[in-house]
Amino acid sequence: MSNSLSVGLIGTGRIGRLHAEHLGHRIPEARLLTVSDVNESAARACAQACGIPRWESDYRQIINDPEIQAVVICSPTDTHAAMIEAAAGAGKHIFCEKPIDFNLKRIDQALEAVARAGVILQIGFNRRFDANFQRVRQAVANGEIGTPHQVHIISRDPGPPSLEYIQKSGGIFMDMTIHDFDMARFLVGSEVEEIYACGSARVDPAIGRAGDLDTVVVLLKFANGVICTIENCRQAVYGYDQRVEVFGSGGSIVVDNNYPNTAVIQGKTTIYRDPPLNFFMQRYLESYLREMTDFLRAIRTGGPSPVPGIDGRIPAVMAQAAQRSCKQNRAVRLDEIQAS
Amino acid sequence: MSNSLSVGLIGTGRIGRLHAEHLGHRIPEARLLTVSDVNESAARACAQACGIPRWESDYRQIINDPEIQAVVICSPTDTHAAMIEAAAGAGKHIFCEKPIDFNLKRIDQALEAVARAGVILQIGFNRRFDANFQRVRQAVANGEIGTPHQVHIISRDPGPPSLEYIQKSGGIFMDMTIHDFDMARFLVGSEVEEIYACGSARVDPAIGRAGDLDTVVVLLKFANGVICTIENCRQAVYGYDQRVEVFGSGGSIVVDNNYPNTAVIQGKTTIYRDPPLNFFMQRYLESYLREMTDFLRAIRTGGPSPVPGIDGRIPAVMAQAAQRSCKQNRAVRLDEIQAS
Amino acid sequence: MSNSLSVGLIGTGRIGRLHAEHLGHRIPEARLLTVSDVNESAARACAQACGIPRWESDYRQIINDPEIQAVVICSPTDTHAAMIEAAAGAGKHIFCEKPIDFNLKRIDQALEAVARAGVILQIGFNRRFDANFQRVRQAVANGEIGTPHQVHIISRDPGPPSLEYIQKSGGIFMDMTIHDFDMARFLVGSEVEEIYACGSARVDPAIGRAGDLDTVVVLLKFANGVICTIENCRQAVYGYDQRVEVFGSGGSIVVDNNYPNTAVIQGKTTIYRDPPLNFFMQRYLESYLREMTDFLRAIRTGGPSPVPGIDGRIPAVMAQAAQRSCKQNRAVRLDEIQAS
Amino acid sequence: MSNSLSVGLIGTGRIGRLHAEHLGHRIPEARLLTVSDVNESAARACAQACGIPRWESDYRQIINDPEIQAVVICSPTDTHAAMIEAAAGAGKHIFCEKPIDFNLKRIDQALEAVARAGVILQIGFNRRFDANFQRVRQAVANGEIGTPHQVHIISRDPGPPSLEYIQKSGGIFMDMTIHDFDMARFLVGSEVEEIYACGSARVDPAIGRAGDLDTVVVLLKFANGVICTIENCRQAVYGYDQRVEVFGSGGSIVVDNNYPNTAVIQGKTTIYRDPPLNFFMQRYLESYLREMTDFLRAIRTGGPSPVPGIDGRIPAVMAQAAQRSCKQNRAVRLDEIQAS
Repeated sequence: MSNSLSVGLIGTGRIGRLHAEHLGHRIPEARLLTVSDVNESAARACAQACGIPRWESDYRQIINDPEIQAVVICSPTDTHAAMIEAAAGAGKHIFCEKPIDFNLKRIDQALEAVARAGVILQIGFNRRFDANFQRVRQAVANGEIGTPHQVHIISRDPGPPSLEYIQKSGGIFMDMTIHDFDMARFLVGSEVEEIYACGSARVDPAIGRAGDLDTVVVLLKFANGVICTIENCRQAVYGYDQRVEVFGSGGSIVVDNNYPNTAVIQGKTTIYRDPPLNFFMQRYLESYLREMTDFLRAIRTGGPSPVPGIDGRIPAVMAQAAQRSCKQNRAVRLDEIQAS
Repeated sequence: MSNSLSVGLIGTGRIGRLHAEHLGHRIPEARLLTVSDVNESAARACAQACGIPRWESDYRQIINDPEIQAVVICSPTDTHAAMIEAAAGAGKHIFCEKPIDFNLKRIDQALEAVARAGVILQIGFNRRFDANFQRVRQAVANGEIGTPHQVHIISRDPGPPSLEYIQKSGGIFMDMTIHDFDMARFLVGSEVEEIYACGSARVDPAIGRAGDLDTVVVLLKFANGVICTIENCRQAVYGYDQRVEVFGSGGSIVVDNNYPNTAVIQGKTTIYRDPPLNFFMQRYLESYLREMTDFLRAIRTGGPSPVPGIDGRIPAVMAQAAQRSCKQNRAVRLDEIQAS
Repeated sequence: MSNSLSVGLIGTGRIGRLHAEHLGHRIPEARLLTVSDVNESAARACAQACGIPRWESDYRQIINDPEIQAVVICSPTDTHAAMIEAAAGAGKHIFCEKPIDFNLKRIDQALEAVARAGVILQIGFNRRFDANFQRVRQAVANGEIGTPHQVHIISRDPGPPSLEYIQKSGGIFMDMTIHDFDMARFLVGSEVEEIYACGSARVDPAIGRAGDLDTVVVLLKFANGVICTIENCRQAVYGYDQRVEVFGSGGSIVVDNNYPNTAVIQGKTTIYRDPPLNFFMQRYLESYLREMTDFLRAIRTGGPSPVPGIDGRIPAVMAQAAQRSCKQNRAVRLDEIQAS
Repeated sequence: MSNSLSVGLIGTGRIGRLHAEHLGHRIPEARLLTVSDVNESAARACAQACGIPRWESDYRQIINDPEIQAVVICSPTDTHAAMIEAAAGAGKHIFCEKPIDFNLKRIDQALEAVARAGVILQIGFNRRFDANFQRVRQAVANGEIGTPHQVHIISRDPGPPSLEYIQKSGGIFMDMTIHDFDMARFLVGSEVEEIYACGSARVDPAIGRAGDLDTVVVLLKFANGVICTIENCRQAVYGYDQRVEVFGSGGSIVVDNNYPNTAVIQGKTTIYRDPPLNFFMQRYLESYLREMTDFLRAIRTGGPSPVPGIDGRIPAVMAQAAQRSCKQNRAVRLDEIQAS
């Protein structure tokens, strides 16, 4: 197995453990050598569960390990930029969970470090690797629906996160809609020029008191004339609601949610089926596996990154534009948003 | 059949003939006595096909006929207001196709005449009587999906009308979106306060040169906090595309298009079915029958009108707000739009 | 309207009234002159509701009326054969509800009378005119699914008829499965050679005590090698269940039930829709209209009948074979069943 | 990981390699120590790909290894019985692919050896572990559809196997329908008393010349009165077709195929989606993982086996009854089939 890549993973929270399982068990091309977490017992538990030989409390043990070729950053957002810079400085390839940072200047510094080092950076927009959305992208790219005119994205969570989480989340646009901003760009294949956004706190007034929104609608105008609307809500009682429709001159394509089974029951008063997969890690499990597999392939083949750093920067700009649009009730052009 | 109502019908174009068939054959409570059209041979052809005893070229023969209790106005838009006033003046109940007029002042004059006369006026928003949309309204009204948060309306035609038609149509918002403005109000059960609209001519540049749009997206903010997005296009190659989704605190409801059959074929390369019903008169046939049946019932029971005059006025205001929003690229409040 | 055909209708029960409404209101080519029923007040009520000028208690008034060109027979089964013979003798074209008779010899006599008279006879297998099943037939006929191999027919009623009805019904195979026997022949386009049937009374033991079955499965072997299975039950709690699937060398086609609307609700615990159309007259309304329209067209064009007499005889043979198979627990060839 | 079980696997063909991957990578409770295959290079390749320390050409090295607690038998059918006996004699728990043997006496001998040794034997009917069919079983078991009346199983392959395979397969009933016999018993929860079967070679005449069938229909009568029909074909051009419907006094449940994505495209002439998953190892991947996980759990908890030996014997009896029914064109009772 001389072709395998040595990997270190930083941050063994929920997503970190998922990546560790995939790197440890399901991706033959990877050797996960070390995991780290500021909580050393979390790191140890993860290592033991996934058959990883070493664990650390200090991520620098990973970045400074000459045997390690790639790092996977799953720590809190406010540590991402510094870790990217350190890893790039050490010549490691980098997979980093989204967002890179809330601050555009900080993002730019990190991306510059990556550029200087010439390493591969992949941002964790896993939904691009989902079979449903890949089929939509394929239909758009190969002209199966002609020239796209309108895109509609539905993205709703089964329930709101804790208030504590929300307070550190950067706001709904930076935390939740950012996935849909990326999806819109991925599907349309053009850049957004202007955003109009509105919303309120309808699920939980406490979210509003914390200065955030939980139910928003965003309208995106693309350079190629496509208009995209996004519907977000922090709570859909029926589960995780992730759908997309693209309409074009030659037809339309729509993807439904994924379900635990295909059973339909004809009962006395209704025809029914079980609700969709409820938990994002179950719904997007295969996409997490694929993004990591593709990361390793990009390293082996010398790139390019399937989701390079710029794809982490632009959605952050869009999130800021949406915030400003919401506050000022006007359409905001993306070129209004500058790093500062 | 002493309980039947005597009806006269003005305008025997496509919609007029449809109503004439329903009144002549399928609504036992109606006696359609006379049809009129400025083109007398069209009136005669319609009368003969539907078993109607009399035809006229002058609609005043209908309005002045003391035997006639109700008139159905299917003539061109620019004649509606005057005919409503004349019919109201003659004490006739009135069914009038949408829109009442493009001019708000003219609408207000007509509605005042109706109010003075105390007759029943019903506007021809037939989609309210469609089984799919009635099921959505029922779900919202009975709390089946909790408090509504977001509404999404898809409304696309199989193909654009003639340029000649478009030039007299009042623009896409007044001609096409007006149905969706009504649908949004019908489904949400609240009033719109503000509109943001955008669009362009993507189907046919000639439509753009004629000063109109053919592909638009509209965002409506309701007083109760609901946000509604509308997607319109003058051409969906797969046929008449009429769908709605309402999302609320307790769930969501979505309606699909109607199809000519339920057959699904598993072929070698795809699983497929026939496209949806393509022609609005076929798709909405039952709704046209039901709106007319309900009009006659309202008359017999002394009202109220299922779709009173105000429901004809407000969508016209919304159309003007959408036009202004589009031109000025800003959110426009409905109270900016005044009769003048 | 010199091209219209003069029609008389015998038997104003449920199906008779439906045909009378269609002939009276919805088929411009027909003039329904007279209806008859042994219960004269039923005949009168039907005539008045449908705008028919005359009613009679004696059907011979219809058959002997020189003005009448075609008769529609909707009276009880045990009167069909005699009426067919009388009408044929009087030179009338004949539409007759199924079955022609329970006795094959009696059927043969009636068909001979039709043949002698050279009139058109159409049997009331309305399901052949349903849009779903026509789409299936079309797919088979045009090779869209290649050479058919297997057919599966599901046909279940919302609830059992009265015991009184069952006792006169001729048994489930003659009363209910007969529609599916016809459907199988219609879809496959070949003749059945052998039948294996089994069943029991699972819905209501009283049906069993009356000597009948309420839940049966029938296997048909066609001359062209197609095997068809039929599932019948007198009670499906979710409504009228009418589905078909044909599998062939080039694919398969399946038709679903028809629903009152397309709404799908995502609720907290299930994704659901309203149950299918429950009542056969609603589910098959359009097919009843089409079969009658096609009957009149066949008369005008000189035939052939869309569903000639032989299509009424063969399903009766099949019903007898199924009965014998059930009793003797063996496959029964159709050529064992002889008129006697 | 003191709780893990040591496993040996015999036969590294297609299914063997799949189980080896699951045991090697995805089931933390298992330590796969050795694989064997008469083709040693196949064994070595499998071992290296799955990170298994040892490989052998002689399966007795596995059965005689005192460290190994459980064996997984994936070798050709004619070796199963002897290996079961040897493994049972050595006190190993046994997972064995279906069928146990074509000969009932041989099956009985193997099951007696298992009974004497008191080890756990699980037969590889993986479809019982599929999420769709488990949902059906759950609906039946918890009364969600009332008392079951009728079951319909569709089971078709994407294409026929090689003639060479067919000649050693034991015939379609023993090789293919056996899965559906097991499924029928699993879903209904009762035993079959009588079988009527028919079929022919419609896909490939060479299959017929080899004495086998490729397109069959089987009717099963259960002791509890349920009638089950099974449709098999060696070739469905649209892919792997695996569906089930159970109808009962309280409703029905139907499961569809699984698809690679949920995308639906509205094109100019049809509404279509991609065909279902085509390859059984992809379609049933999760079920293979679950059956093996449950096998190890049964061992750890002391049983019982989720699919004990008797569940391997009865479908073989059913296959023989179906063969006899087909040849003699009569219903065959299972108690006619005796070990000899």
